[in-house]
Amino acid sequence: MSSIPVVVLVGTSGTGKTTFLEKLIRELKKRTITVGTVKHHDHDFDIDKPGKDTWRHAQAGADAVVLSSPSKVALIRKVEEELTLDQVTDLIGNVDIILVEGYKRSDKPKIEIHRSAHSAELLSAPEELLALVSDGDWQIGVPLFDLDDACGVATLLVDTFLAVSK
Amino acid sequence: MSSIPVVVLVGTSGTGKTTFLEKLIRELKKRTITVGTVKHHDHDFDIDKPGKDTWRHAQAGADAVVLSSPSKVALIRKVEEELTLDQVTDLIGNVDIILVEGYKRSDKPKIEIHRSAHSAELLSAPEELLALVSDGDWQIGVPLFDLDDACGVATLLVDTFLAVSK
Repeated sequence: MSSIPVVVLVGTSGTGKTTFLEKLIRELKKRTITVGTVKHHDHDFDIDKPGKDTWRHAQAGADAVVLSSPSKVALIRKVEEELTLDQVTDLIGNVDIILVEGYKRSDKPKIEIHRSAHSAELLSAPEELLALVSDGDWQIGVPLFDLDDACGVATLLVDTFLAVSK
Repeated sequence: MSSIPVVVLVGTSGTGKTTFLEKLIRELKKRTITVGTVKHHDHDFDIDKPGKDTWRHAQAGADAVVLSSPSKVALIRKVEEELTLDQVTDLIGNVDIILVEGYKRSDKPKIEIHRSAHSAELLSAPEELLALVSDGDWQIGVPLFDLDDACGVATLLVDTFLAVSK
């Protein structure tokens, strides 16, 4: 198990988790922080392009395929049961921080993205939260950021997890 | 570095390496052998689908993205320099054998796929070869298989690397 900080973004569907995560990644990259991300998907997915050699390998029955180039490596592996978040983050390798979408029941620190028009309540208990990003006026003893304040959240992440090394 | 056997398929472009590899994977899977494959690509590649969340993470600057589901996991990681074949095979995880396309200069055992209409010569020296797959009548002290004999090559791989465990 790696010691890379892992933070889970939670929020009801349609609150703009991915949009906020994109902004957060950009803010962290401005600070030369390397970022890994994890997305959970409930169903099978096809990520490779039909006809490509790696796609042909997988169609023929390969349990895992890797495509490697001078600038990028891609792995697609069949699993018999879903990997744990720790197993997933081990795959990512050496980055400064890992941001996760969609493992709501994880015990990792969380950032909840909340939009008042979508829900009057929060998904998370205050003690689970590193930060709350919302257009509401919450007073729950957790740092509160506006929905457009990815910069503030990036600063919090750096201060919390990365201040010594950066 | 893992102890999983790694075999490299070599051959000039157009000899049908991928087609032979597909057949070989199918033959191995019939024998309940788990197979990983590696494909080398000289240039950058796009494997993810534009608009998908993981694609958006990567576009925003993420250095590594993982998509995880109950049946499959995919990783796309930027690299500063090309991974070695050993680093690549470490990513694959626990399979019985790894078959590789496109690392001609590797010191792993090789199977050359040769077609007389494409070349009068072989790419590999006999001592590098575990087997030769060709429509020619070679006498080089290396097991020779017809271009359609993926079954024979699968048996050779099992006998050479997997006979004890299977």
